[in-house]
Amino acid sequence: MNALLLVAHGSRRQASNEEIRTLTERLADHSDHEFSIVEYAFLEIAEPSIAEGLSSCVAKGAKAVTVLPYFLSAGRHVATDIPEEVQKSQIQHPDVKIKVAPYLGSAEEISNILVSLSKLAL
Amino acid sequence: MNALLLVAHGSRRQASNEEIRTLTERLADHSDHEFSIVEYAFLEIAEPSIAEGLSSCVAKGAKAVTVLPYFLSAGRHVATDIPEEVQKSQIQHPDVKIKVAPYLGSAEEISNILVSLSKLAL
Repeated sequence: MNALLLVAHGSRRQASNEEIRTLTERLADHSDHEFSIVEYAFLEIAEPSIAEGLSSCVAKGAKAVTVLPYFLSAGRHVATDIPEEVQKSQIQHPDVKIKVAPYLGSAEEISNILVSLSKLAL
Repeated sequence: MNALLLVAHGSRRQASNEEIRTLTERLADHSDHEFSIVEYAFLEIAEPSIAEGLSSCVAKGAKAVTVLPYFLSAGRHVATDIPEEVQKSQIQHPDVKIKVAPYLGSAEEISNILVSLSKLAL
């Protein structure tokens, strides 16, 4: 059973964390074939943490988890912090295959979305 | 003449600011019909500032500028800081029509991109 764990930064502003919850529900609707479990977690500030999110996926029966960084640039969080948290959880769950997907900002389609948004304001 | 000004947060990490420059070039390639000028600016830390970016668009002949917030959540930066900077520049350039487009994270297509990225790691 494959799980998808969307990882966002986490905010002091609850409405921002709510956006992640809503987005995760939309993701679950879009990806029912590949991922039977879709959860979210936060790197900092908000909960659940990455460790908690991964444990939750495992508790629901995940044998493989794809961690998806919801970040726009390849800074320290994407390059170091998320892989480190994942590595720690991997030790806790040696039988589960945990991989990190490319971060959102790396997707080429972002520029198409930006063009669409900019036309809305014309 | 319409201009598009992509506004990112700005980072101490030069590589992150470089990503914005590269993305702006891609945007220019994608939007040549609607926007004859495509520039970028940063809200904080890096340069050019929003005021500088808008002045640059005006100096190149823009009669209308669409400001596009490259942000994932509707926090203080999107809700308050960017509109305030735009308002100040609008006073400096009363003959130019400056509008703010919806922020990146508000686009529904984001979830499709996330699903595509997550499949790359399967």
